[in-house]
Order: sequence, then C-alpha cells, then structure tokens
Amino acid sequence: MNEFELIAQWTRSLPGNASVIVGAGDDCAVLDSGQPGRYLLLKTDAVVQGIHFSATAEPEQIGHKALGRCLSDIAAMAGRPIAALITMALPSHFDAAFLQRIYAGMSRLAERHGVAIAGGETTSNPERLLISVCLLGDVAADKCILRSGAKGGDALFVTGELGGSLAGRHLAFEPRLAEARWLAGHFTIHAMIDLSDGLAGDLRHLLRRSNVGAEVLARAIPISRAARLRARAGSSARTPLLAALSDGEDFELLFTVAGRDAVPLLDAWKKQFPKTRLSCIGKITSAPGLKVRDKTGAHSLEAHGYVHFS
Amino acid sequence: MNEFELIAQWTRSLPGNASVIVGAGDDCAVLDSGQPGRYLLLKTDAVVQGIHFSATAEPEQIGHKALGRCLSDIAAMAGRPIAALITMALPSHFDAAFLQRIYAGMSRLAERHGVAIAGGETTSNPERLLISVCLLGDVAADKCILRSGAKGGDALFVTGELGGSLAGRHLAFEPRLAEARWLAGHFTIHAMIDLSDGLAGDLRHLLRRSNVGAEVLARAIPISRAARLRARAGSSARTPLLAALSDGEDFELLFTVAGRDAVPLLDAWKKQFPKTRLSCIGKITSAPGLKVRDKTGAHSLEAHGYVHFS
Repeated sequence: MNEFELIAQWTRSLPGNASVIVGAGDDCAVLDSGQPGRYLLLKTDAVVQGIHFSATAEPEQIGHKALGRCLSDIAAMAGRPIAALITMALPSHFDAAFLQRIYAGMSRLAERHGVAIAGGETTSNPERLLISVCLLGDVAADKCILRSGAKGGDALFVTGELGGSLAGRHLAFEPRLAEARWLAGHFTIHAMIDLSDGLAGDLRHLLRRSNVGAEVLARAIPISRAARLRARAGSSARTPLLAALSDGEDFELLFTVAGRDAVPLLDAWKKQFPKTRLSCIGKITSAPGLKVRDKTGAHSLEAHGYVHFS
Repeated sequence: MNEFELIAQWTRSLPGNASVIVGAGDDCAVLDSGQPGRYLLLKTDAVVQGIHFSATAEPEQIGHKALGRCLSDIAAMAGRPIAALITMALPSHFDAAFLQRIYAGMSRLAERHGVAIAGGETTSNPERLLISVCLLGDVAADKCILRSGAKGGDALFVTGELGGSLAGRHLAFEPRLAEARWLAGHFTIHAMIDLSDGLAGDLRHLLRRSNVGAEVLARAIPISRAARLRARAGSSARTPLLAALSDGEDFELLFTVAGRDAVPLLDAWKKQFPKTRLSCIGKITSAPGLKVRDKTGAHSLEAHGYVHFS
C-alpha cells in the first residue's frame, strides 16, 4: 500500500454524522441537511503551480481550470452548482494584475453556469501559487448519480474524445453540467464519474465502488485529435489508444445504463447534443476485472491505468 | 490601497446568484438553497506551515487549528457545523505517521462538535504543508448573526481573555460554538464576529460592516495571563493591553446587544458558562471611528489595529 492509499484508508474512517449520505470516495460528498427531497453536494479541489499548470499558462485559463475541475465533479453527480469559495495561496511577489485575470477566467466560467463566487480568502504560500476551490451544489435526491450503481450487463458510455488533454484541453474544457443533468432527467443512469485520472483509472474507481467489472472495446474508444497528432509527431511515447486510456484530465463523463437503454439513449443524445460525441465503449460485467478487447482478444488491464499490451 | 485590499475589492464584484444572502466580507458566506427557514453557511480557511504553525508544532495541534479556525467562523454566525472537507497539500518527503496524527487532532475536535469529515483530497505542495478546510454549516434564518447589525447605543461584549495566543492558545482553542448558539437562542444579538485578527482589527471589521463606531474602555478589556506573562518576561515589546488589542488568533466572540440587554445577559451567562469570562468592554456609537478610553481620556485607534498610545 503506498502512502496515498494509506491516506485514502484513513479518510474512510474519519468522523461521520447523520448528514453524510456519501463521504470520501465519490466525486462529491453527498449531504442531507434536512431539506426534503434534495441532497447537498460538497467538493473541494486544488490546483498547484508547476503541477496542475505551468508558469507560462494564461491566468484566465488557470482560473478556468481551478473552478472547472470542481464543476466537473458536480456534473458527475448530475448536480446543480450553487456557490464557490476561492482560497488563493499567493507566492511572494505575486502580481496583482495576474491575479485579477485569474479571477476573470473563473468568473466567466461561473457566470456561464450560474454559479456564485461567494468569497474565500487570500493567504501566503511563498514558493508557488496554489488555488483551492470549495464548491457547494445540490441535486434532487432521486436524481443523484453515484459511482456505485453499475450493474452487470450495463452499457458503458463516454462523452467527447479522450487523450492528449495536456495539449490544451486541460486548461479550457467546459464542464459537462448540462449534459449530465439532461442524462439524469431522461434516463436511468446507474453510475457516473468524471474523467480526471484517465479512462482506465477512473473506470477502475467506478468498478470498485460498484463491485463489478468491465469489458471495453479498443476500437470504440473515442480518441482525440490531440492524442493522434501527438503520437504522429512523436511527441508522445504512447500510442493514441494508450493516451486515451491513461492521459487524464479529459473531464468527460463516463456512465452506465441498462443495456436496453443504450440505443434509445444514443438516438436521443444525437438530437439533444449534435456537436458532442457520445460513445458506447463496452459493457459492465458481473465478474470483477477490467479487460480491453481488440482484434487479438481480451486483455487484462494492470492496476493504476498502466496498460499491458500496446 | 494595498494589494490585499485590491483583492478584497475584486472579490466583492465576483459573480453572484439568487442563492447568495451574504457573500465576501462576513465570517461565512450565507446561502439560501431553498430550504424554508434555514440558511447554509460555507467557509474555507487554510493554514500554511511557517505562517500559521511552525515546523515544531505537534501534528495533532495543527489538525486541531486547521479545523478549529473554520468552526470559529461558523460560531460567529451562531451556526451549526455539518461537514468538512480537508485538502492536504503535502510537501515532498512527507511523513505518513505525521499526517495520520494531523487527522487524529482534527477528528477529535470534529467529534466533540458533531461535525463529519466527509472527504477531501491530497495534492502536492513541494516546499511546505498547506491544509485547506472547507466547512458547511447551517443556521435558522432568523438566528443568523452577521457583522452588520450593530447599532448606536449597543453594549459591546467579548468572551474569554485576549492576547498572547502565540504562547499556545492558537493551537488549542476550543471554538465557541455552544456559547454562540446559546447567545442567539436567548438574546437578540445584533452583530457578532470571531477574533482572528485581534480585537482592534476585528472590531473595525464589525464597525465598518455596521456603519457605526465604538468606544472601548481600556480597563474593561480582558487580558490573558499569557499576554501579561510575556510582557513581564520582556518577551514582547508591547504592553499587555496592546497585546490584547492586536495579537490576533484569540478565536473569542465579539458581539453587540441592545444596552438594556447587557445586565440580564451578563447574569444569565454566569449561570450558563460559569468558567468562561464574559466582559462588557464598551459601547457602539452612531458616529464612526474607534476610540479607546483610559484614565487620560479617549484616544483614536489607527487603522489596521496599530495603536497610537501605549
């Protein structure tokens, strides 16, 4: 067990109370504050200079990414974002105009999704900029989609195209809030997660929480143009398929529905979101394990998204 | 205008929506999620190694302080804390056992106050430990105490004793949650704030939000034993009174009630909280400005808590 797994273990045994419907281990914490028929969603996420963005990133994009990551987690539960608080931990000699542009990027995204930025604080982190976002949302209790509801026989879907996010998308993605709420409003979504760690890693999270397995069809995985271009240019040591499986920061939605809903869902999606790709990439299996099927057969995927074959 | 004041100005013009009852500028954001008769309270606060705690602090105390600061802000609005999320930004080569002890300190405090720790995340901040806490609470809409309700003629009260917090209290204070809820339940509290920046600084915040002034009696200010000892030992260049006015991190409650409620409140407090001092330290004035009265007369206090006389 590595140290991050240790921490994950501790955080599962931290104090609870009657308000906690879902604690650590899903996209957001789900809380019942006593409002009939509704749950609150609470999420916190930080971006750190040199890790989540480089010193050369545009400040508007840094702000966009910091808030967008949390919004994507609210989307993964089909929730409605309400208000965010922003903690700005500023390095020594920070530039006030740069910071104002960070807030501008954040504000544009917030306005598009009707989210308030209701305060926060500034503190010091001498060596590098760190932005921690706390986001409150809510959702109808019967429309809250967890990671844990996938069932054997479900069809597995992913929105958009995967891989190569570092080429730009990770700073400019639009959280799939409208898509997620439409899905939850029109179909019985069994389980959903947003893709931050890469398809293989996040699918594994979903499978573990649901206690099921999956078989993914290699040729059905939607590979982004960025992933293909990077592979062709030799700027990536991985094939486009491996990039799509493991690059991370796609901020797309991965979800499952009963097999019988797969075709009606695809049809309705095409009418509702004609510009956004939706791909059925495989099926959920009652037996645990994650397999990728290509023309040579079905191959097991190693833990942590690392891919055996290539 | 310094850069932090600039930021404060920007954050007042960030996007809002209909859910925001009170945004930036009070102890917590106050939000209406549609639950009749109740408001949500949302607060975020970070502690940073080398700034809010030293490398030699006990890890349990670091955890206690990180959560306690947010709890104190919920107390300042007479709220009930519900659940916290913890962002651990870990330095390179962090010690897993040390981190577990931080969670232990936090958990003990959370359990005492019935707060859940419902998740969070771990990320990297290579040079130093930074802990950001996001705390959700709620409050009856008609019992939510803001900074902005003080009126000319109000009596000004403070709990506990002030100054010298760095000698230990800043790592071990107990948030005044029970006291605040009792106050709001039994008296009409006009305005309240918790003391994090020091009496002079925080009183100024309350006065500015309420658009009033105050006159404080120097001899009525409750000075802590720590502040007196430090002054006597020469370990502080300031008098005990100056320490009580400006040291900060007392995490006591400062509040105002109508003048006629002052004596009944003091009497009832002594019965309810016999071990905790409550001091009437002065009065609110309709005219703006902050004055401290001693035996030589009434003296204006400079901005930012700096004290003219000594």
